[in-house]
Amino acid sequence: MPVTRPSLRLTHDGALKALGGALDKAEELGVPQNITIVDEGGNLLAFVRMDGAKLLSRETSLSKAVTAASHRQPSSRLNPADEVKLSLAAGQRLTNLEGGLPIVIDGHCIGAIGVGSGTGAQDVEVARAGLRAIGADDQIP
Amino acid sequence: MPVTRPSLRLTHDGALKALGGALDKAEELGVPQNITIVDEGGNLLAFVRMDGAKLLSRETSLSKAVTAASHRQPSSRLNPADEVKLSLAAGQRLTNLEGGLPIVIDGHCIGAIGVGSGTGAQDVEVARAGLRAIGADDQIP
Amino acid sequence: MPVTRPSLRLTHDGALKALGGALDKAEELGVPQNITIVDEGGNLLAFVRMDGAKLLSRETSLSKAVTAASHRQPSSRLNPADEVKLSLAAGQRLTNLEGGLPIVIDGHCIGAIGVGSGTGAQDVEVARAGLRAIGADDQIP
Amino acid sequence: MPVTRPSLRLTHDGALKALGGALDKAEELGVPQNITIVDEGGNLLAFVRMDGAKLLSRETSLSKAVTAASHRQPSSRLNPADEVKLSLAAGQRLTNLEGGLPIVIDGHCIGAIGVGSGTGAQDVEVARAGLRAIGADDQIP
Repeated sequence: MPVTRPSLRLTHDGALKALGGALDKAEELGVPQNITIVDEGGNLLAFVRMDGAKLLSRETSLSKAVTAASHRQPSSRLNPADEVKLSLAAGQRLTNLEGGLPIVIDGHCIGAIGVGSGTGAQDVEVARAGLRAIGADDQIP
Repeated sequence: MPVTRPSLRLTHDGALKALGGALDKAEELGVPQNITIVDEGGNLLAFVRMDGAKLLSRETSLSKAVTAASHRQPSSRLNPADEVKLSLAAGQRLTNLEGGLPIVIDGHCIGAIGVGSGTGAQDVEVARAGLRAIGADDQIP
Repeated sequence: MPVTRPSLRLTHDGALKALGGALDKAEELGVPQNITIVDEGGNLLAFVRMDGAKLLSRETSLSKAVTAASHRQPSSRLNPADEVKLSLAAGQRLTNLEGGLPIVIDGHCIGAIGVGSGTGAQDVEVARAGLRAIGADDQIP
Repeated sequence: MPVTRPSLRLTHDGALKALGGALDKAEELGVPQNITIVDEGGNLLAFVRMDGAKLLSRETSLSKAVTAASHRQPSSRLNPADEVKLSLAAGQRLTNLEGGLPIVIDGHCIGAIGVGSGTGAQDVEVARAGLRAIGADDQIP
């Protein structure tokens, strides 16, 4: 068996483009947001907090992004009956809130985007605009 | 687009006046309280723990104040079905307890007051007295 | 004595412009960086980690930015004999590393920029480019 | 041997008077400060951050106060050769910075005051004014 496997990584240009696409959508909707981009390891790549966004939603946007990168699926796919115990066991970063989406290109999950300060539906809409800005798969799996 | 926007900040005189107004009300009610004033960024500005107040309610009063400053609304406006997952995702500072109110003057949210050690209704009553002491809007939004 | 004082706040447009100016300079130098913009309260406004930047320098760039916002001066102005004890006493966010600069416009300190992953001199050069991009004072005080 | 021993505790009125005395002195000096009052258990009793005080000095003022309450002596009495290892071993709250003084009345140490954002000498001068405002012993032991 080989000791390496080929992979893709999200560049900072890609991360900033995704951030910009999400930002434009949030401005179009008139909903100030916290927008977080993480890499496949859940480490912060890019971030913006818009004027008027809720301060504590910075953390929720990060939790959503880390969850989506970790599980390679939207952040709202846990069984609600398990969400609190899973979050506690996972160090509180795991969340079942809507608004975190994996960034998948050519079949590789290369990171995630998390959005927080609007309604769940607004957060998802803004996150999807971020995916489209870099040609990532926005077919929510 | 401009790189700055005009704003107001709460002075330490204002913070101490709000603290004093809340303290007077708590003494009138005979309910010892923890009273926390934060600025618009959730950073501590002024605090007092009254004789006999519950020690751990220092943290709840801070959580209430930070939540109200972050969301620019009273700290008890989350959907109860979401409050635990929101708090976990936001790093545990976010709370749905009563007793945190934003400090709004001339349309600017310049901070918040959080009160903890009494009943929810007493905490809110004391927080509102803090708002009145500095002419802040006490019409709960 | 008044309960409020007039102030300025850095917009997210301003924060992203400063980030972009710093990023351009880092690319020109060929030095991948972590670039952090915080507001006057030390809360994160914008961030990027460039391809190849050191992962842990995300934290140093944040510490530099928070220190510069807190003290309203470059992050490298502590007495070296005191820097470790000051950092410990201040909860480890305070640093004496080069690369954090306050963002001052019209005499208001409205935030700070922190840069980390290069040499100290490179970090400062990149931070200064961020200041220039938004017309902030880059006369290091 | 008896199972209890008589003691004194600092009231919130006393804590606010000490805070006020320190605040007046800081205003007289023209030096914005963070002023922290803790009880004999190191728990926060009262606090104010003055306009323009360094944000991170909130933590140093608390560290100074907790150190003075713990050791019942000024916060700057450690052997410099030991200060870092002592701070690390004590959970980082222990500090050798100037500006923390025990509050001693009738021979009881009932708390401490910690001041941070000025020079060490200014911090001590402001802390001593706090002691005088409540008739506490300001003979630094």
